[in-house]
Amino acid sequence: MIVNDILNIINSAQKIYISTHIMPDGDCIGSSLALYIALKRVGKNVKVILDDEIPLHYRFLPYYEEIISPDICENDSPDLFITLDNNDIERLGRSKNIFFKAPNSLCIDHHPLGKVMFSKFNYVDTNASATAEIVYVIIKSLSVEIDKDIANCLLTAIIADTGGFKFDNVTPYTLNISADLLASGADIKKINEIIFDKMSIEKVKLLSKVLSTLSVIENGKIGYIYLNKAMLEDCGASVSDSEGFINYVKNIDSVEIAVMFRIEDNGVRVSLRSKDFVDVNKIANKFGGGGHKKASGCFIDNNFDAVKNVILDECRRSLWLEWHSECIQT
Amino acid sequence: MIVNDILNIINSAQKIYISTHIMPDGDCIGSSLALYIALKRVGKNVKVILDDEIPLHYRFLPYYEEIISPDICENDSPDLFITLDNNDIERLGRSKNIFFKAPNSLCIDHHPLGKVMFSKFNYVDTNASATAEIVYVIIKSLSVEIDKDIANCLLTAIIADTGGFKFDNVTPYTLNISADLLASGADIKKINEIIFDKMSIEKVKLLSKVLSTLSVIENGKIGYIYLNKAMLEDCGASVSDSEGFINYVKNIDSVEIAVMFRIEDNGVRVSLRSKDFVDVNKIANKFGGGGHKKASGCFIDNNFDAVKNVILDECRRSLWLEWHSECIQT
Repeated sequence: MIVNDILNIINSAQKIYISTHIMPDGDCIGSSLALYIALKRVGKNVKVILDDEIPLHYRFLPYYEEIISPDICENDSPDLFITLDNNDIERLGRSKNIFFKAPNSLCIDHHPLGKVMFSKFNYVDTNASATAEIVYVIIKSLSVEIDKDIANCLLTAIIADTGGFKFDNVTPYTLNISADLLASGADIKKINEIIFDKMSIEKVKLLSKVLSTLSVIENGKIGYIYLNKAMLEDCGASVSDSEGFINYVKNIDSVEIAVMFRIEDNGVRVSLRSKDFVDVNKIANKFGGGGHKKASGCFIDNNFDAVKNVILDECRRSLWLEWHSECIQT
Repeated sequence: MIVNDILNIINSAQKIYISTHIMPDGDCIGSSLALYIALKRVGKNVKVILDDEIPLHYRFLPYYEEIISPDICENDSPDLFITLDNNDIERLGRSKNIFFKAPNSLCIDHHPLGKVMFSKFNYVDTNASATAEIVYVIIKSLSVEIDKDIANCLLTAIIADTGGFKFDNVTPYTLNISADLLASGADIKKINEIIFDKMSIEKVKLLSKVLSTLSVIENGKIGYIYLNKAMLEDCGASVSDSEGFINYVKNIDSVEIAVMFRIEDNGVRVSLRSKDFVDVNKIANKFGGGGHKKASGCFIDNNFDAVKNVILDECRRSLWLEWHSECIQT
């Protein structure tokens, strides 16, 4: 499937609904809004539906307030349903019901195809740093001018999915597209400030408290922190404020495995990160969790001390096993 | 002066010394090393001299160990002395003595020209995000291939001077050059990790302690933290570990003025940052300090309570004065 095929599919539809995954991030929101603006511009009857809240910090994006809940249009049947940045139909949430009523469906994504190809047409480019890179090409092919609004949506998406051009998914193409978006009026400074720098006072207080629990073992190769309800209450913070705290541990020079324990009423939620060679997905798998090689998590219904002991034991084991296999390989 | 003139100046010299400012940063080191590699490649007898230490985190750059102190070559007289990223001859440190012995000198910079044009030739482009952008053009014009080493030096320089593509000095050209450097083998992930993410365990502990001192006043518009010797000792940290802590305060949603007090034996060092409209340079000036509109500092030889009171009073005054003038203007 090439971009021309996508244009044909779009051209043959008038009523087009766009949706994306629940727990939305910068890429899926930015890509959806950019495509929404472009399709409206070429005269389509278009809606973005999303079965979740837009996170507060993405509410600076143009037209975010026109994103609607699937409840509002549950009886609609669009000609074409486009899903962006999503390889799992269940992650459409209740938008799924409308998806099934569309005679044509198109999945545009940069994640590997899921177990089930749920869309009729699929355009997947796993080399794209963000779905926004693919949407950029489609908008260009539609001959829609990339104006300031579209540029801000797409650059937000790319910056969010590349950690601000920091991850190794950034390609020369990513930067060339971003150059064009900047030239079209995107505000790179503002986008970065909003996504990465902005903090609430509660979050800063919580960061101080959580980092004060830092311990390292195994010559500094394993580092861990914890968070409990009392800390949240003391700071007036919510659990989502602790997002990203584990990176402070991972970024310590000596650390290979970083762990954050979140102590809840009925057990402990464990987040795991590795820097270079340990596969923390394997560790999480042993406790019924999962994720990726360098970022995973699990939940264990036991008390903090017990959970800490089993997790740190498993971390030690992985560290030395993989350390040795690393030494043998190199 | 155009790039061709620079090529003529370089072509007419055989022994070329490159130097840059003391307290070196990523741009000046990366630019110097990139030009060093390129000039060696075209057969020049070239040295980089620097009257300061290379910060530890830039010691991953290729050929950094070939940078020499001006002591080692104080009797040399090069045909051409190139200063990079520096508009003030005093900031050459002791390299100045060698500078004066060169019949030709060339200043390549992106800062506005200083009070005195100390070089015979000057190529200044204040639109460049980093001096590295200008060096990139020169290397291309010399027909030297941008290999992995040069690419890593130049991309490090650009990333350092743009805060990782976050500041408003980033232009489409910056991103297009960076795309080319990435295609030439620069490691964008590693560079970012080394410059921005790496932390010592002592720094993480100190961050926790210093952020625990956070207070806000004036409806959250002024935020301040402090650091004393006991904290440094408790964490085994040094003063330089506290670099950047003030940004956590500045990044709080409500904050317009952020202050960090560093309590020393004979007084208090005050750092000031503003987010949008307050000119903190004016505040620092009142106490014999200085800086820029949005980042300044001063030293007051009094006890912490006294310093805190006068500084916060001045912050309140500036906040409301400039707030009102802002309201009148807009």
